[in-house]
Amino acid sequence: MQLAMMGLGRMGANMVRRLLRAGHECVVYDINASAVAALVAEGAIGASSIEDLVGKLKKPATVWLMLPAALTDENVNHVARLMAPGDIIIDGGNSHYHEDVDRAARLKDSGLAYVDVGTSGGVWGLERGYCLMIGGPDEAVRHLDPIFASLAPGAGQPADLSTAARGYLHCGPSGAGHLVKMVHNGIEYGMMAAYAEGMNILKAANSGHATRSADAETSPLPTPEYYQFDIDLAGVAEVWRHGSVISSWLLDLTAQALSADPDLASYGGRVSDSGEGRWTVKAAIDTGVPVPVLTSALFQRFTSQGESLFADKLLSAMRFAFGGHHEKPKA
Amino acid sequence: MQLAMMGLGRMGANMVRRLLRAGHECVVYDINASAVAALVAEGAIGASSIEDLVGKLKKPATVWLMLPAALTDENVNHVARLMAPGDIIIDGGNSHYHEDVDRAARLKDSGLAYVDVGTSGGVWGLERGYCLMIGGPDEAVRHLDPIFASLAPGAGQPADLSTAARGYLHCGPSGAGHLVKMVHNGIEYGMMAAYAEGMNILKAANSGHATRSADAETSPLPTPEYYQFDIDLAGVAEVWRHGSVISSWLLDLTAQALSADPDLASYGGRVSDSGEGRWTVKAAIDTGVPVPVLTSALFQRFTSQGESLFADKLLSAMRFAFGGHHEKPKA
Amino acid sequence: MQLAMMGLGRMGANMVRRLLRAGHECVVYDINASAVAALVAEGAIGASSIEDLVGKLKKPATVWLMLPAALTDENVNHVARLMAPGDIIIDGGNSHYHEDVDRAARLKDSGLAYVDVGTSGGVWGLERGYCLMIGGPDEAVRHLDPIFASLAPGAGQPADLSTAARGYLHCGPSGAGHLVKMVHNGIEYGMMAAYAEGMNILKAANSGHATRSADAETSPLPTPEYYQFDIDLAGVAEVWRHGSVISSWLLDLTAQALSADPDLASYGGRVSDSGEGRWTVKAAIDTGVPVPVLTSALFQRFTSQGESLFADKLLSAMRFAFGGHHEKPKA
Amino acid sequence: MQLAMMGLGRMGANMVRRLLRAGHECVVYDINASAVAALVAEGAIGASSIEDLVGKLKKPATVWLMLPAALTDENVNHVARLMAPGDIIIDGGNSHYHEDVDRAARLKDSGLAYVDVGTSGGVWGLERGYCLMIGGPDEAVRHLDPIFASLAPGAGQPADLSTAARGYLHCGPSGAGHLVKMVHNGIEYGMMAAYAEGMNILKAANSGHATRSADAETSPLPTPEYYQFDIDLAGVAEVWRHGSVISSWLLDLTAQALSADPDLASYGGRVSDSGEGRWTVKAAIDTGVPVPVLTSALFQRFTSQGESLFADKLLSAMRFAFGGHHEKPKA
Repeated sequence: MQLAMMGLGRMGANMVRRLLRAGHECVVYDINASAVAALVAEGAIGASSIEDLVGKLKKPATVWLMLPAALTDENVNHVARLMAPGDIIIDGGNSHYHEDVDRAARLKDSGLAYVDVGTSGGVWGLERGYCLMIGGPDEAVRHLDPIFASLAPGAGQPADLSTAARGYLHCGPSGAGHLVKMVHNGIEYGMMAAYAEGMNILKAANSGHATRSADAETSPLPTPEYYQFDIDLAGVAEVWRHGSVISSWLLDLTAQALSADPDLASYGGRVSDSGEGRWTVKAAIDTGVPVPVLTSALFQRFTSQGESLFADKLLSAMRFAFGGHHEKPKA
Repeated sequence: MQLAMMGLGRMGANMVRRLLRAGHECVVYDINASAVAALVAEGAIGASSIEDLVGKLKKPATVWLMLPAALTDENVNHVARLMAPGDIIIDGGNSHYHEDVDRAARLKDSGLAYVDVGTSGGVWGLERGYCLMIGGPDEAVRHLDPIFASLAPGAGQPADLSTAARGYLHCGPSGAGHLVKMVHNGIEYGMMAAYAEGMNILKAANSGHATRSADAETSPLPTPEYYQFDIDLAGVAEVWRHGSVISSWLLDLTAQALSADPDLASYGGRVSDSGEGRWTVKAAIDTGVPVPVLTSALFQRFTSQGESLFADKLLSAMRFAFGGHHEKPKA
Repeated sequence: MQLAMMGLGRMGANMVRRLLRAGHECVVYDINASAVAALVAEGAIGASSIEDLVGKLKKPATVWLMLPAALTDENVNHVARLMAPGDIIIDGGNSHYHEDVDRAARLKDSGLAYVDVGTSGGVWGLERGYCLMIGGPDEAVRHLDPIFASLAPGAGQPADLSTAARGYLHCGPSGAGHLVKMVHNGIEYGMMAAYAEGMNILKAANSGHATRSADAETSPLPTPEYYQFDIDLAGVAEVWRHGSVISSWLLDLTAQALSADPDLASYGGRVSDSGEGRWTVKAAIDTGVPVPVLTSALFQRFTSQGESLFADKLLSAMRFAFGGHHEKPKA
Repeated sequence: MQLAMMGLGRMGANMVRRLLRAGHECVVYDINASAVAALVAEGAIGASSIEDLVGKLKKPATVWLMLPAALTDENVNHVARLMAPGDIIIDGGNSHYHEDVDRAARLKDSGLAYVDVGTSGGVWGLERGYCLMIGGPDEAVRHLDPIFASLAPGAGQPADLSTAARGYLHCGPSGAGHLVKMVHNGIEYGMMAAYAEGMNILKAANSGHATRSADAETSPLPTPEYYQFDIDLAGVAEVWRHGSVISSWLLDLTAQALSADPDLASYGGRVSDSGEGRWTVKAAIDTGVPVPVLTSALFQRFTSQGESLFADKLLSAMRFAFGGHHEKPKA
């Protein structure tokens, strides 16, 4: 079927490629004309403006936006002004699901259907397929089924399997898709931190070798005889991939990363967060759900960004005030 | 090759079965004679006592113990007394790796080799193979390679693959195997909690429907319009299995569990911990490694066991003391 | 000077009493006429309606609202409609500071000044004085100085001390008062939890006495010889009050509570949270500030309210799925 | 009464001073002869060796050791060899209470009494008195009562007050003193972190002013209008000292520190930990007590010491692997 794609970054462009390979007709637009040209060379129909894009569509016109979250709202509005009742707007980016709820209500007044799609798969989606978490009105979601089926990982699999088993799920009304994706990312933070913390313990398993400063500001290692192990972390990550309880796709990637660069020397340790972990924790707080693991993972990222500095200074100031402890310099 | 197995519980018995299928000779013993008989019926050689077991072995005699941690020490000693220099004792149970370090030193004086094997795979190991994390002296570990290769998941795979890629790894000297297994379990706690917390948020996504008591002891839900979703948790777990960043074997099991019993009505919510999570955190503390995620997961289990009760009562007592707040009864 | 007080609950009524004792004129209103009558008997001027209340005020009219947060907005609006430019509205309740920012902007258009006052002191404020955290325009805050000085703990102290040293502080523009109070409460949660967790450890210091079930679902106590202490918790709380680093007013209350009821038998352990801890953590997340301690304290309360139940059930379900572990019943 | 003090560092020397002022006879020894000379000039009796020290004592000889934890064991043994049944050894340093339990058992065989005293008060103890948490046999503790009464803060107070109300408490058998002191320090970590985190939130309350990079690796501030506050942290700490729920001695020190150096420019933010926080958490884990707040505070210190670096690098490596996210450089 026909679909318009707006926003041809890494994600948007690869999704178009996957749709083209499945035989769908893709009309594409991006403010960067060369991104349009590249996909036209691969079989897409190019558009030179949003007006041109919408103008090239059969009814019901269907536009999928794959844009940075900050740009989505104005572009949804722009597209909406060019559309007629019965048309469909899809946001496949990283919007906060609250925005979806608000947008859907707004667009419903104009007779437009709004569908939000949380998309996981990252740079691997073209090859593996995209896991799609979908929110929106039943009719529109049903109409888009061929698109979802082609984008999802289970593209070749029998249609009598549930859509979930083929990698896409209609999660509920507008907002439900990004809600489920938001929580997905929150879980991702927690899993990543679990592996990272575990590997950090194994790396420190040779602490007993090290000479330790014996000043009063350094807590002694109580039993150095138990910390004499030089563990091959890449090997450990690899072996865990096979038959262990903690095998996962993230572990596959971890094993590759450690194998390629065992000391991770190309990284400085500043871990970004893109917002979804924050939203997840705020949703948990709103509803009174305890999420200590997800939150610890989020805060560890904040700290890696330098945001605990003032708190840490204050702790040192208190220690000096009550105990006369002089701060050791940072390593 | 020949191997003696002591301890024919679920794990030990299934490991014998996997070894028998691979053509190894297994001499087996358990205090429960019917467990011995069952495996004899499947091709193992039975023994009626530890003495009988060791007596039936060729040199170097090789005994694998698969016993509850609390019983391992005395049985290792018992077996050791019957052995001669060059013989090998393997502990495949859940010993604390500190005990391995101590035992290895002790047995070395008698000329015995001690090998510790952390084993992951649970009830699925017979079919999937066991992920093996191995500590001990090089020579003994090399000698046992055919056993490890058969137990591990990559049993049929080309021998030019690394052993890690076939599911077993010699992690270092005695203790290294259980050390790596310990951290594996610590990570497992963190991952499990990440999924559980995320699912709990999704379950609460319908909080906006609920009538909420409006007393001063209940924090209001600030934006009920955003919490109107009835999410199909089993469907979500299933869709995440396909192409998402958080796909894993634990997620596979989660999807099955939620599909079979969406409300998890057969569980009461008391989560046991078997010790390895505790040891992991204590090792992190000894070496000064921050592990907030793994620890949060561990403490959540303690709390589920009722162990925060006195602390919680004290919080209520303080709230009454400074603010006159009367405690609401537990639901 | 003259002040109108709306809302004569425990906090509002006691603040009126403290102001009357300091010689101020208080006009009072509450929907509960007997609350008005009680204060009239103590020297206040009663009002029978909001209109009556505002009608009885000299210019600039000054109305202090001490209402549940959920009722504040409509009452602010009601009062505002009866006021003239130059008049002052004070919210001394527990509003979210976001609301203050919004209200101040709205009221400024009508020429009214809006002052928000975070108030700490609880049921002890009448006697000890109220710690006041104030936000609002300079002129209005300056005008109200005699009121603040009388309410605060340092009522009798020399006026050349800073206002902070006398227990009240103009923290910034509208919203700043409730912002500082919000964080104050967040800190309070963390401190309370620190004491509660510590006391819980001391209570468990006799675990070595207990017979422990030896099943596979119970982690053994590794060194029972170190857990043979029956600690007098009330005595410990009392001794810490004198010269220790952790002495505090909360510790004073803790010592009293433990002395009166060492087993805290009158509490069930359901710890409420009234919203400010949630807002504190959300503000930290918005600004990327790591607050693991404050958040752990908040989540511990959620868990005490039963909100981890589904997550805990899911953990038990996973443990059964991969390891065949049967859940132990809750105690 | 007579007491020997070994170890004349800041703590030991000031305790001698406080005892001298109360009229006790103090025999003092330190490997640093000038520390001995200084106290002799203030009225103490000097000793030139451990042998000399013990030789100068009446029976029962009573030696108080105030030494770094690492040196305590050998010095206890040295003193013990010079003593006779009925004599008393007191460890007032920061020993792990496990060592006390072991030492007491050992010394009991020689007929010596061993008393452990956890001491809080830091550099302020000379002036304020020392809060004393005492473990050991009843008879010896009773014998030492005049010493404890003089060291504790309630030195001048009526003897019919409980000892706890005068600042010292016999907490139980040997080890109980250091156990209670250990938990005291664990609580201290939690309280300190609660203040530090809260102040860090207030410091960030002006984030809305800042220009924020708009790249995909930076999570946007959702509502900058609510983060426009420049809060005077020293003023806030000061006002909270007066009548608020969170007033405490640590807050007094915090207010002083922020007043003297509002930006804490003399600190770098590396927060040491001296071991007791670690022991506290390990004791909690042994007994299955959840202590998320105390542990979060401990881990925050580890992270400030740079110990999360490898974990953080691994998180960045994973983010690059699944999403192609390039790490931002550290600030």
